[in-house]
Amino acid sequence: MIIVKTIKEMQHNMKEVKRTGKTIGFVPTMGYLHEGHLSLIERAKQESDFVAVSIFVNPLQFGPNEDFDRYPRNIERDKKLAEEAGADVLFCPDTKEMYPDKPVVTVSVNRRTDALCGKSRIGHFDGVATVLTKLFHIVLPDKAFFGLKDAQQVAVVQGLVDDFNFPIEIVGCETKREADGLAKSSRNVYLTEEERKQAHHLYQSLGKAQGWLSDCDSGETEQKMIKYLEEHTVGTVEYCKVLSYPELLPPEKDDEKLIIALSVRFSKARLIDNVIIDNVLVKQGSGEETCSVH
Amino acid sequence: MIIVKTIKEMQHNMKEVKRTGKTIGFVPTMGYLHEGHLSLIERAKQESDFVAVSIFVNPLQFGPNEDFDRYPRNIERDKKLAEEAGADVLFCPDTKEMYPDKPVVTVSVNRRTDALCGKSRIGHFDGVATVLTKLFHIVLPDKAFFGLKDAQQVAVVQGLVDDFNFPIEIVGCETKREADGLAKSSRNVYLTEEERKQAHHLYQSLGKAQGWLSDCDSGETEQKMIKYLEEHTVGTVEYCKVLSYPELLPPEKDDEKLIIALSVRFSKARLIDNVIIDNVLVKQGSGEETCSVH
Repeated sequence: MIIVKTIKEMQHNMKEVKRTGKTIGFVPTMGYLHEGHLSLIERAKQESDFVAVSIFVNPLQFGPNEDFDRYPRNIERDKKLAEEAGADVLFCPDTKEMYPDKPVVTVSVNRRTDALCGKSRIGHFDGVATVLTKLFHIVLPDKAFFGLKDAQQVAVVQGLVDDFNFPIEIVGCETKREADGLAKSSRNVYLTEEERKQAHHLYQSLGKAQGWLSDCDSGETEQKMIKYLEEHTVGTVEYCKVLSYPELLPPEKDDEKLIIALSVRFSKARLIDNVIIDNVLVKQGSGEETCSVH
Repeated sequence: MIIVKTIKEMQHNMKEVKRTGKTIGFVPTMGYLHEGHLSLIERAKQESDFVAVSIFVNPLQFGPNEDFDRYPRNIERDKKLAEEAGADVLFCPDTKEMYPDKPVVTVSVNRRTDALCGKSRIGHFDGVATVLTKLFHIVLPDKAFFGLKDAQQVAVVQGLVDDFNFPIEIVGCETKREADGLAKSSRNVYLTEEERKQAHHLYQSLGKAQGWLSDCDSGETEQKMIKYLEEHTVGTVEYCKVLSYPELLPPEKDDEKLIIALSVRFSKARLIDNVIIDNVLVKQGSGEETCSVH
């Protein structure tokens, strides 16, 4: 695995790879790799001739009160893991390389941000879209791989690629889960023993919500999820939402896909999870009799 | 010359051209081609193996009170002119093809816009940067050619390419002029006979300003330009400015390049012109005695 730190060298290398007719798969990360990232790298390996991984903790996507400085970094461990998972090149520029000056241009995300995590993270997705626009031009991938645990990010990135006509296919990869269903995350280690035992109820609630949705409307389903999570965990529910996907608007009968998404704050970790499903509202009856929140 | 109307077909064609190892030169236009555009196409032909021209009147770069609907269009004439000048492909999508929905993402230009024409055209350069981001991904050029008569546009586009790391070289091409020095423009035909006779004084004033700058500061030079233009033309001076280039800020001694730019409104045409010069302020003496505005 080659390690590249400058934009010029990376862009040059990737142009050379393209010239040989190889397809390029790209996994952008902020480092501190976990099994979720590694499964993306493995998927990229399956679907491309050449795999590029980037590690860049992007200051533009952190708010003033967020944890940019405290964000965990371990580049030596990441190098080893990325290589083992099948990366051919690791691009790890520093901040000065990516943002030598205050940028003249940035990407503004005008939709899909005013819900779920975007609601409380103003400017976060502008930062994500801006750095990905840069990285896509530096890495020149045919396909880019993102985990669907961050479903809102995938929705924004799909909008970025569609609207800006990037010649890139976005591959949303299914969330990796522990044996009991808990979505894999670096943050799971911050759970207490008791919280970890309860945490599978997050995924349970997503399964139950799919059942409730065949009888209840989206608002009632959200209420039932909140009640379920409050009864089965010590966490504080930040949101439980049923929305259209990828637009993230209140669901209508003619939406193709829905997302059921939740965020629960435990003592030292905020966990998110979601499922994306075919729109069940089209099949829904009146439901008045079977649906009861209280 | 091939004519292409859909993004999918254009992107496919251009990928094929790239695959053969040919370099692609790109001239983006809003159509109604004049000699300025044709000289860009000819320049692109000299410097590239394959020349793509786009014609798209971009609604995003027109303000609500601007002339999007009235903007002149003559696609049949344009096809003939573009082909004669050496274009290999003409991309002319309609609005629905370029903007099927309200965009999820747009480009925001954060600098270089609060001066010259940008000052009165709020959002104009956001629209320019957004459509060029799309077009660059559709056309996949190695080089893109822009006229320096729109020097502020070139400054913004250079910022776009630098900040987003587009693997594209921006070529700013010198302004084409009539025999008396008047910058060529479609709008020159709107000048009355008297105005046309006076209009060479715009370029004259840019030459004189270079002389004044060796004795006067930028503010005094601007005043002298205004006085000169008011004395020698019936037009209304919109601005005369000496700024750093490409940042378009008040000039400092350590700026490399300066722009001297003007805009004059005649009865039926608003004309702009500029020169970009090495920074003469470094050589400037005290100048107190030789500089007099009044």
